[in-house]
Amino acid sequence: MTTGEPVRRGAGSAQQTVRRHNLALVLREIAEGEPVSRAGVAQRTGLTRGTVSSLVEELIADGLVTELAVARGTTGRPASPLQLNRSGPAGLGIEIGVDEVGVCVVDLSGTVRAQRSAASDHRTREPAVGLDRAAALAAEVVAEAGLPVEGAGVALPGVVGRDGVLQRAPNLPRWVDVAVDAELAARLGLPVDVGNEADLAAAAELWFDGGPPDFVHVSGGIGVGAGIVLGGELFRGPGGRAGELGHVVVDPDGPACSCGGRGCLEQLAGQRALLELTGARDVEALLRDPGRATAVAGRALGVALAGVVNLVDVPTVVLGGLYARLGEPLAAAVTAELRSRVPSRPEVTVRLSEPDAGGALRAAAALVVRRRLRRP
Amino acid sequence: MTTGEPVRRGAGSAQQTVRRHNLALVLREIAEGEPVSRAGVAQRTGLTRGTVSSLVEELIADGLVTELAVARGTTGRPASPLQLNRSGPAGLGIEIGVDEVGVCVVDLSGTVRAQRSAASDHRTREPAVGLDRAAALAAEVVAEAGLPVEGAGVALPGVVGRDGVLQRAPNLPRWVDVAVDAELAARLGLPVDVGNEADLAAAAELWFDGGPPDFVHVSGGIGVGAGIVLGGELFRGPGGRAGELGHVVVDPDGPACSCGGRGCLEQLAGQRALLELTGARDVEALLRDPGRATAVAGRALGVALAGVVNLVDVPTVVLGGLYARLGEPLAAAVTAELRSRVPSRPEVTVRLSEPDAGGALRAAAALVVRRRLRRP
Repeated sequence: MTTGEPVRRGAGSAQQTVRRHNLALVLREIAEGEPVSRAGVAQRTGLTRGTVSSLVEELIADGLVTELAVARGTTGRPASPLQLNRSGPAGLGIEIGVDEVGVCVVDLSGTVRAQRSAASDHRTREPAVGLDRAAALAAEVVAEAGLPVEGAGVALPGVVGRDGVLQRAPNLPRWVDVAVDAELAARLGLPVDVGNEADLAAAAELWFDGGPPDFVHVSGGIGVGAGIVLGGELFRGPGGRAGELGHVVVDPDGPACSCGGRGCLEQLAGQRALLELTGARDVEALLRDPGRATAVAGRALGVALAGVVNLVDVPTVVLGGLYARLGEPLAAAVTAELRSRVPSRPEVTVRLSEPDAGGALRAAAALVVRRRLRRP
Repeated sequence: MTTGEPVRRGAGSAQQTVRRHNLALVLREIAEGEPVSRAGVAQRTGLTRGTVSSLVEELIADGLVTELAVARGTTGRPASPLQLNRSGPAGLGIEIGVDEVGVCVVDLSGTVRAQRSAASDHRTREPAVGLDRAAALAAEVVAEAGLPVEGAGVALPGVVGRDGVLQRAPNLPRWVDVAVDAELAARLGLPVDVGNEADLAAAAELWFDGGPPDFVHVSGGIGVGAGIVLGGELFRGPGGRAGELGHVVVDPDGPACSCGGRGCLEQLAGQRALLELTGARDVEALLRDPGRATAVAGRALGVALAGVVNLVDVPTVVLGGLYARLGEPLAAAVTAELRSRVPSRPEVTVRLSEPDAGGALRAAAALVVRRRLRRP
């Protein structure tokens, strides 16, 4: 059964399956086309108006869809356009960074309705301290949003197993095999999903900024990671750990890395390396005089990304995090390095991530509502 | 309709579709289980014995399947085991190397039935000269095999577009935008399929040596390439050019490469680089005293493969071509380098390609018979 087609026949329990399938189909049409009339949904799905009306009633009763008020004075029967319910089920997002924690709530449409961040040193303290801090901040933000939050998505700066366990995070040596999903579920009283920060940042680009079907999104920060999107889907690799761009070797004899390797991209173009290189006290200072950081990061990123282009054949590079803040000069430096490294691929483009896309934090929260929309 | 399940219902032209589907299903069971009885096929497919018998008759009439002679003296009704017809439709394989051409014919079971190679300098001569040479050698090998060859598959040392055109081959500067498929089809009078040598070498590992579902196969020669297999399928990337391991940067300030880049793996660990490094006259001489070549290639391969492990997350590396001939000491050197570069993935294994798998040439020929088996 393809998910894009309506299903009409069925009996007994099969009929229930059919109804669930069509419910999801109608909800997807409303999500993608809102505001849209029942007639519009019927036309696009191929379902009868009667079926659509019945399914829409169910979606309204479940709080997933609302009818917009129709302007008075329209002639004929009002069309009552439908849209996703902004007061319906919502998602909580949590991002555990190296030295901060971010929290947000998104509504069913993926719009951020409340958001806060706070300093929180996860390098030296026990994971439990950081998790307590995250849960406390989350409670505040959930209260502020005033929406029925149904679950949480968490972005983590490390390797996340398919079982929801943070296996390791090179920049957080104390966070080894931490069951972040279970730990936060217990603190929040909500079901919790976890994902890698770089993967979720790439997903944000795809979901909220109309990203192209094939690209690599590079997250620059204390850690450097990448999310690879192929065919409009996150490419996670056989073990779920693909896209570890920060540990691609750029200088085989370079400085030792927290991963145990040497000369990794992160050691040359990560936030700490660039601060050290320029003597800037913090990122704000770095951005006031970014010339040298841009040149050095541009070259290192170009070398590492030449590997991505050669191995995975992506046509688009999106620079995010600190790299987006370094802006067009960095994109130009990376482009120049890529051109000289892979002259056979002049079509590869490098662009900056759209800050409004919301990054990994928003995508983490959106995991919750996107799942709800897929299975109403 | 999943391809793994029998389909029973249907009427009119739908019935024909069902029959074709079940024909392919029965043929696949015979190919995978040969020798196998009709009853065995019925049991494994869930089709009735009557249906299986009827389909088998059609496969026998088409020359795809034969009955094995049954030993006399068995009691009861003989089971007449079935197998693929070794005299049935066959495939021609052609491999255009940098300085040689190889040709083989495989039967329906993928077994090589005739094979030859010849020196043929494709670096300095016009492509047409090489294509003539390949076609002439192919005619000899086809005559020797004495099988009904239905088509040809061609392995090429460069970038092959989805349209069958060799776009470029870094080591064959005269071969730019050559429609190898059309050129050889005209010379051979056969339909022709083309593919990248490294991709086909990986396919050989998968098809003929029971390769694991996820691995990268590295082809060492004058050119260095890789075929990446994920989930039992060749991973070609959005543009069909994934796996260009030879041009991953290993030494950013290293020697200029034929690709226009600098310090690519091929410049450090390709056949020419290793001959130059050791002063050996040819590969045979190199293999008599391989110590220095093994150390240098092992380090360079380890650095480049650290990128593959980090970006694509493959758990297995298979070394082929010249690298397989350098043997276990090279595998050990690559393993040691990978361990130091990516200490977080101690499970990654490095092994040698099985020469009996037959490599890219056999896989190219097998393209033909595998297609025939999928669509009987």
